[in-house]
Amino acid sequence: MKLGRFITLEGGEGVGKSTNLQFIEQILLERQIEVVITREPGGTELAERIRKLLLEKSDELITSQAELLLMFAARAQHIQHVILPAMQQGRWVLCDRFTDATYAYQGGGRNMDVNMIAWLEQLVQGSLRPNLTLLLDAPVEIGMRRAMHRGKLDRFETEKVDFFQRVRQAYLERASLDQNRYSIIDASLPLIEVQAQITQAIDKLCTA
Amino acid sequence: MKLGRFITLEGGEGVGKSTNLQFIEQILLERQIEVVITREPGGTELAERIRKLLLEKSDELITSQAELLLMFAARAQHIQHVILPAMQQGRWVLCDRFTDATYAYQGGGRNMDVNMIAWLEQLVQGSLRPNLTLLLDAPVEIGMRRAMHRGKLDRFETEKVDFFQRVRQAYLERASLDQNRYSIIDASLPLIEVQAQITQAIDKLCTA
Repeated sequence: MKLGRFITLEGGEGVGKSTNLQFIEQILLERQIEVVITREPGGTELAERIRKLLLEKSDELITSQAELLLMFAARAQHIQHVILPAMQQGRWVLCDRFTDATYAYQGGGRNMDVNMIAWLEQLVQGSLRPNLTLLLDAPVEIGMRRAMHRGKLDRFETEKVDFFQRVRQAYLERASLDQNRYSIIDASLPLIEVQAQITQAIDKLCTA
Repeated sequence: MKLGRFITLEGGEGVGKSTNLQFIEQILLERQIEVVITREPGGTELAERIRKLLLEKSDELITSQAELLLMFAARAQHIQHVILPAMQQGRWVLCDRFTDATYAYQGGGRNMDVNMIAWLEQLVQGSLRPNLTLLLDAPVEIGMRRAMHRGKLDRFETEKVDFFQRVRQAYLERASLDQNRYSIIDASLPLIEVQAQITQAIDKLCTA
């Protein structure tokens, strides 16, 4: 059985992840590829309960360390119970956010030590890395304007503009260091052009 | 303001932690020491919610890594929001289980890499270590017989005998390596003798 591939979709707030997640699923189905759609933090019952702890607004301030450890605890469950089993059955996995988001939000946004994240990544993932990461990139102002229109904001979405500037910067830096894995998509373009870029990146992976 | 002291109470199942926790509180109050009683995993609202995830029995198997990361996530909250603030106000903290339990249960019981635990301990605690750790020690059979009588068992309490043998062994090994911090209490003795030993250890700390 050939191992399935692992695609992650990344980006800040309001860059169009949900719309494009559905679009990617459709492309893969058209190409007869069985795909499991999932998300982080979350993807298993326990991991979704951890997600709730992470995203809810609460009177108790969550320390950066607790946030980081909860993210990786959820990830450990997700990898063992969903991602690896699907890939081993030859199915592809399409995940709405993964460890790049930890580097961007906790590393970039919260200024946490990147070595700490890398250590936890190694602990929880071993050699597992996405085969393709689509980074939907747009200036922070555009994304935030779109996100605002969605209504109720979660604990991360209520952060300030400079937080999201650091998140975007961290994403772009990581992408520039590994151009084989990343495909940076200009999410400020009209949707039809965004999706043309996405299709091209997926087709490249299909024929790789 | 003189920093308060940090006492932890450790031991396997059924060694009498609850009874002796109350006894220690009473001794400290008699000596006019203000004490905060707390427990792990738990001690803050978020940490108690994490405790629930850890102790509940569920259909989703919790991986050893997720278990370990959840323990330290709860600990990070507990230290920042309860333990350190209390100590900084000069109050003593008496905690039902702490990081030694992680070394014993996850390290000993689950055979997890001790270096991994030590790395997380350093990350979350910095230089914070208990001033005194009372280890209530009894042969596993005695403790399990007592624990059984309590009724409903949690996810850890349903482990097998050899798991608890490894837990006890790991506790004793750690205690033997740092005899200044640990006081090993023979919990198989009659309660009056157990409490005489505890009183002696607390009094030694009070005059230190």
